[in-house]
Amino acid sequence: MYQIKTLFKPPPARRRFATFCLLHRRHLQTQADSPPPPPPPPSTGIEYSLAHPAYTVWAANTSLGKTLVSAGLSISFLNPSISKKPNAAKKFVYLKPVQTGFPDDSDSRFVYRKFTDFFLQNRPHVSLFASNHVLNASAPASRALLGKRSENFGNEVVGASGPVGSFENLGWYEERKVQGLEDGETMYVRSQLICKTFYGWREPISPHLAVEREGARVEDSELLDMLKKGLGLGTNSGFGEDVDMDVMCVVETAGGVASPGPSGTLQCDLYRPFRLPAILVGDGRLGGISATISAYESLKLRGYDVVAVIFEDHGLVNEVPLSSYLQNRVPVILLPAVPQDMSDNLLEWFEKSQPVFNSVKEMLLSAFQERTQKLLEMPKRGRDILWWPFTQHELVPEENVTVIDSRCGENFAIYKGSKKNIITEQFDACASWWTQGPDANLQIELARTIGYTAARYGHVMFPENVYEPVLESAELLLDGVGKGWASRVYFSDNGSTAVEIALKMAFRKFLLDSKIHFDLVKADIVEQFINLKVLALNGSYHGDTLGAMEAQAPSSYTGIYQQPWYSGRGLFLDPPTVFLSDGVWKLQLPERIQVDNLNTEDCLFNLRDEIFEKSRDDSNVAGIYNSYISKELSSTSSETNALIGALIIEPVIHGAGGMQMVDPLFQRLLVKECQRRQIPVIFDEVFTGFWRLGAESAAKLLCCQPDISCFAKLMTGGVVPLAVTLASESVFEAFVGNSKLKALLHGHSYSAHAIGCSAARKSIKWFKNSQTNNNLTPGAEFLRELWDAELVLQISSNPAVQRVVALGTLFAVELRAEGCNTGYASLYASSLVKEFRGDGIYTRPLGNVIYFMCGPCTSPQVCTKLLKKVMRRLEEFSQTQVKLQASQL
Amino acid sequence: MYQIKTLFKPPPARRRFATFCLLHRRHLQTQADSPPPPPPPPSTGIEYSLAHPAYTVWAANTSLGKTLVSAGLSISFLNPSISKKPNAAKKFVYLKPVQTGFPDDSDSRFVYRKFTDFFLQNRPHVSLFASNHVLNASAPASRALLGKRSENFGNEVVGASGPVGSFENLGWYEERKVQGLEDGETMYVRSQLICKTFYGWREPISPHLAVEREGARVEDSELLDMLKKGLGLGTNSGFGEDVDMDVMCVVETAGGVASPGPSGTLQCDLYRPFRLPAILVGDGRLGGISATISAYESLKLRGYDVVAVIFEDHGLVNEVPLSSYLQNRVPVILLPAVPQDMSDNLLEWFEKSQPVFNSVKEMLLSAFQERTQKLLEMPKRGRDILWWPFTQHELVPEENVTVIDSRCGENFAIYKGSKKNIITEQFDACASWWTQGPDANLQIELARTIGYTAARYGHVMFPENVYEPVLESAELLLDGVGKGWASRVYFSDNGSTAVEIALKMAFRKFLLDSKIHFDLVKADIVEQFINLKVLALNGSYHGDTLGAMEAQAPSSYTGIYQQPWYSGRGLFLDPPTVFLSDGVWKLQLPERIQVDNLNTEDCLFNLRDEIFEKSRDDSNVAGIYNSYISKELSSTSSETNALIGALIIEPVIHGAGGMQMVDPLFQRLLVKECQRRQIPVIFDEVFTGFWRLGAESAAKLLCCQPDISCFAKLMTGGVVPLAVTLASESVFEAFVGNSKLKALLHGHSYSAHAIGCSAARKSIKWFKNSQTNNNLTPGAEFLRELWDAELVLQISSNPAVQRVVALGTLFAVELRAEGCNTGYASLYASSLVKEFRGDGIYTRPLGNVIYFMCGPCTSPQVCTKLLKKVMRRLEEFSQTQVKLQASQL
Repeated sequence: MYQIKTLFKPPPARRRFATFCLLHRRHLQTQADSPPPPPPPPSTGIEYSLAHPAYTVWAANTSLGKTLVSAGLSISFLNPSISKKPNAAKKFVYLKPVQTGFPDDSDSRFVYRKFTDFFLQNRPHVSLFASNHVLNASAPASRALLGKRSENFGNEVVGASGPVGSFENLGWYEERKVQGLEDGETMYVRSQLICKTFYGWREPISPHLAVEREGARVEDSELLDMLKKGLGLGTNSGFGEDVDMDVMCVVETAGGVASPGPSGTLQCDLYRPFRLPAILVGDGRLGGISATISAYESLKLRGYDVVAVIFEDHGLVNEVPLSSYLQNRVPVILLPAVPQDMSDNLLEWFEKSQPVFNSVKEMLLSAFQERTQKLLEMPKRGRDILWWPFTQHELVPEENVTVIDSRCGENFAIYKGSKKNIITEQFDACASWWTQGPDANLQIELARTIGYTAARYGHVMFPENVYEPVLESAELLLDGVGKGWASRVYFSDNGSTAVEIALKMAFRKFLLDSKIHFDLVKADIVEQFINLKVLALNGSYHGDTLGAMEAQAPSSYTGIYQQPWYSGRGLFLDPPTVFLSDGVWKLQLPERIQVDNLNTEDCLFNLRDEIFEKSRDDSNVAGIYNSYISKELSSTSSETNALIGALIIEPVIHGAGGMQMVDPLFQRLLVKECQRRQIPVIFDEVFTGFWRLGAESAAKLLCCQPDISCFAKLMTGGVVPLAVTLASESVFEAFVGNSKLKALLHGHSYSAHAIGCSAARKSIKWFKNSQTNNNLTPGAEFLRELWDAELVLQISSNPAVQRVVALGTLFAVELRAEGCNTGYASLYASSLVKEFRGDGIYTRPLGNVIYFMCGPCTSPQVCTKLLKKVMRRLEEFSQTQVKLQASQL
Repeated sequence: MYQIKTLFKPPPARRRFATFCLLHRRHLQTQADSPPPPPPPPSTGIEYSLAHPAYTVWAANTSLGKTLVSAGLSISFLNPSISKKPNAAKKFVYLKPVQTGFPDDSDSRFVYRKFTDFFLQNRPHVSLFASNHVLNASAPASRALLGKRSENFGNEVVGASGPVGSFENLGWYEERKVQGLEDGETMYVRSQLICKTFYGWREPISPHLAVEREGARVEDSELLDMLKKGLGLGTNSGFGEDVDMDVMCVVETAGGVASPGPSGTLQCDLYRPFRLPAILVGDGRLGGISATISAYESLKLRGYDVVAVIFEDHGLVNEVPLSSYLQNRVPVILLPAVPQDMSDNLLEWFEKSQPVFNSVKEMLLSAFQERTQKLLEMPKRGRDILWWPFTQHELVPEENVTVIDSRCGENFAIYKGSKKNIITEQFDACASWWTQGPDANLQIELARTIGYTAARYGHVMFPENVYEPVLESAELLLDGVGKGWASRVYFSDNGSTAVEIALKMAFRKFLLDSKIHFDLVKADIVEQFINLKVLALNGSYHGDTLGAMEAQAPSSYTGIYQQPWYSGRGLFLDPPTVFLSDGVWKLQLPERIQVDNLNTEDCLFNLRDEIFEKSRDDSNVAGIYNSYISKELSSTSSETNALIGALIIEPVIHGAGGMQMVDPLFQRLLVKECQRRQIPVIFDEVFTGFWRLGAESAAKLLCCQPDISCFAKLMTGGVVPLAVTLASESVFEAFVGNSKLKALLHGHSYSAHAIGCSAARKSIKWFKNSQTNNNLTPGAEFLRELWDAELVLQISSNPAVQRVVALGTLFAVELRAEGCNTGYASLYASSLVKEFRGDGIYTRPLGNVIYFMCGPCTSPQVCTKLLKKVMRRLEEFSQTQVKLQASQL
């Protein structure tokens, strides 16, 4: 009744993989011609379907039975006799990306064999089909396999082709059909097991060692691309498009959770971009509780969801403490003891274990169901109860709500809803409100750092206290962004509070220097006669709390609709701006600045960096700036009671004001003039700090130093809020005295919280170390150029583009627009934004300004990939605009 | 030349331990009489000396050679021939708290034996002394030991006494003296090895299982107290006080890092309060890289510092990837392969390994040196560069700076400086600015949660997006503190920003309801005619940013010294307050409230909870309040342009205002009146929310609901900053329209950051679940009383005490004081504060108000212990005051 049916024609899956392997071969050959590039090319981006469940099988250690679990699940999943839908088409995809000890050990072959053996012994009602395919093997592994052939090792070895780089394109394929009891001979096979091994090495050692010894290297990106294709096998039924099919994919790792993969990257880090939910095979032996919990924690520390812990019973009731400890987090399942006799074919064990595997399978299915259901419902649930900042909810239909499943380095993993039903990648081009710096490695480092810090400190009281993270982060700040002038660090929560604190510092210092405080015996009377103002630039933005808002010029954010208490306590100057347009950097003066005696050569620059040159201090333009500044300052001092008590500027770039680049010469002269007049100078570096503009501090670009400086955003690497206001010692001294009332009475509960300080310590070091940041050469003060010069020039020449700014990690484009299409509330860019999201780029424009921001460590390769997409879409956009205008004529 | 010298007189160490065991026995007997108390009693608090290094030896799994490492270190440390100071007195203390498989396995005996055998074979220049002492064993273990005696198992078994609870007070002691080569017979032994096993069980299984099977239980607190005494052995030289002695302590754990201890608590959690630096014995076998990294991560996730990873060489070069992965964090050291032959006495191996152990020893010594040096320097370094909020630096001499080494649950581990040179415990009675909720378990849960979240999300962009932590925390908020009225959640960073947002919401709603916005065609003109004010209470405090400060009455925080832009845009009412004094709860009306018709019974309460009763709405006092409120509101409406656009109150308790309890009746009536007048009501629950006052929301105590509510602090359990402003749907609708300009344009970069939201999700659930919070019975809306009623009454009757407030997690005492001794800047309490810190209580007073705050899960036992100390110190303080006054008369 049972027979092994051999097919001689390669099945569809095989052909697909053959094609893939050819591509793969070309890729490797290209690499072989050139020296090994550091870092390896990024993967093509993760994507996988949520039409069916996919899990990764991990283990607390090697040899704990991952493959037994995979095989057991495959049997349970495809077993027609226990299926609720016995006649439904079904497919189980088993993927083993990395196999060492091959061909003696082949987990995909084991799954394939046990599966078929099991059903040859236990009668299915319908026919089943199974295949095993090993795609690539190292030369020693290939040779060993050829030796094995004579031992009748595999029925269906399809000969290995020549070497692919240092791999053999093995193409070892075998398949079996198990004829069902009630099947007619011609009946379709409705259930299939597909097993694939991607890469095999000969020695039964850790993959990274095998790679070294056998000279067959695989880059992480290649492996991920391979995995993406492998997971894609699940979406094609093989029975035509309209067949409804139940599918499950299982990816089995090698060794323990933190065992190195072929490149040396730990597997838990290697597979992280996919973040497939995990099955953890635990350890039932003595010591196994610890091993299982630690492995669980390593997975959690990489952001994995563990849906089941399963392990072999060794009679030590490890499941009791494990269940207790993992309570409410993950079910713990016990497998019957595995026969120790090596000659046992385990079929009886599989038979006995079926109830367990069935219940595991049900768990996996229901966890998957829960996950997809949740993802599906999230847009509506979120839209119903969240109140998004800076967002008109009426303008956000449910389908526009982005569901973020996770992030990995610079990329979001996005859930794309009901129609597509996939998890896909989007580059976070808004750097999540300009906070993001981590690549995937730093992200995991930060996870461990803040986990450690939470466990060590939680949060502890700051005033009058000292603890390691606060001290060390403060020292790094003074030795970095505050170097040469700052001597005190005042911690707070965000840029806005840092600015309010800075203003309080500056005003006190100013009052003291002006000897005004000495008159304040009856402070409350004198107060009425003092109208302290801040000097600031139109278009600058310093935060959303009232004190910070008062330091910015009237705007959309400040009207009675938004902030009835706003009055705008500043003297606001109009700054000259610079930008790239039609391939040339240009200076543009505001109307309020006289331009009679200006030469063209003062307004055009061949290179961006000429704009920053100190030699411009003696230029014609400098004179124009100085006289404008003097005039404005004099006019205010004639105002009754009004005193300029502080200057506040965002150095070089006005962020929220539309990514405007202010002429650094103008800002430098302004700073000089204020310091001459004993007006304390504040740099708001909340946006610009920590390499955002290519230097650790943007003060370096301005070539001058402030008295007070504010930092936040990138400071913690972008994981938790933390801000600092740095001050010179003379500013600090304005608060020193014998009464608490003279102290600076501003603080927040989480001031200098240990977790934020630890994250800052880690990130500041990471960004400025050339060993962790490839964009820095040792000793360099500036990041290398991240944006391809040629592409930037081309984009600046696009007729739809008004101007471009490319500096440090920032690339911004202002679209040419008029009237209501300009400004903050403009929706002019929304069609483009939609296209970008389709291209895997998440942007959030500032009206008609679209920006793309990477991290200090982002590879220029990634930026170039991004720019190419941007250029293509802008070209399309430009053509559409031309057509639109033509149609309107 | 060599001889084993037997001493028949018990050495001092033994006597000390015998006494301790007696105490221990009594403790156990007491427990046996009553049902097992949940939770077990707290330990007496951790404390250990930093005069010498103490390390814990952990392992990635069982049987990896922890004891070999301990023994090797003991030999290396005490070996006179390699010592830089060969004649210095030295002591190596080896502690094995938990031993299973005893007496067949006894790690302390192994260390003792190998040490002495080694030196009997290798000639020391001076005499060495070694002892091994096993203190307690389960009955089966004791019986087995008695059986062993006949086998000449130990030379010096000092007979076991009767059962101690379910333990035998074993007192098994053995010792050896190794006569040195150049020693005269009478010469002092200057180097000694002291080995101790605290508890032994018979079966070679996990301790928690052995406990269960052998019926010999040890509470975690007992074990910790035992460990404290064991570590104390290092401080006594045994050679008199003035002998300078080199000491090293090593504590060896059982099994793997996360193996359960006797109570079932994982050992990495069990030993966490001491947070001794760790030596991790890794795994050199196949799979060992993963096991080692995972174990390392479990230790880091508990806040341990790992100073060395050491493992046996199995030829797999595991050290390469491990060194690479752990780079810059911890050195990786390889031990020679251990002979597999069970008959090998290992002495040759120890000989061969000595260079390795010597270098490990040097690492341990230098890491210790570095740690203590750092701790010693931290006060100065911190004082030089940090700028503490709310702190007059002139008033903080270096010796007053507290060095916080870590926290565990409610307790700080404090480093006490140069003279004491210890790590000791202080209860964080200010709950680190009122943020703290976690017990030790929740702290570790939160560490894992935020580690996971950082790895999964880092931080992701919020507007128009949705992700699990934000959605689920928002749902918990609406179903908890916002239940019944709130429908939207607006995230921000801290209480102050949450209040600014609340005010913006309230004003918009008010303007809309008042139809004022319809006139605003030319908004900028009309704005001048609108003077929006907030209704608030004198003494309330809503945060430090300008917008929040404007909503509070003038105070020390608001003068021109502090905030030149403050104007105080409120109508500030004087609230009636309640407090406990001389054992009675009393109501006190402010001067501005008429009191002609007030009865005494309206002003006195037998029980605190009477104050909250709804029936008071019909009382005499209610009438008085209503007329005061109406009068004040009417007087403002007659003012030109002034409009009351919002009411903001801190429900029940004014926190920063001095822990004043406002009559809830007054606040309830105020809310009602405002809602009648369509003035939006804001509850500032930043301090009061999340069980701070005994209910999840203090609105529950007021028996009324706001339109807008602010939460922060405890919301994340106290690990990272996060705030929310909850709003009713009608408030939200005031921002809905077709333009972005109508949206609420206020946001911070880390709005709704995933890590904060995850922490909130975990904490909110933890606090309100009776399974994790023992202070809640299932379904209860209020915490049980945490402060012992009798003690509270007694303290309120202390003549030095003006008033007491005890509510929820808050216990506050106002000291009776006058003139400059009262108010925020008063230093009146400073002598008391110093005493409290000496008692292990960290407080930070608000002028002459001292408060003690625990977490929602803190055991009442802990509170009682605290109150007793407070009472004693207050009594002393009172007597001093009496004497002082007498001397002044």
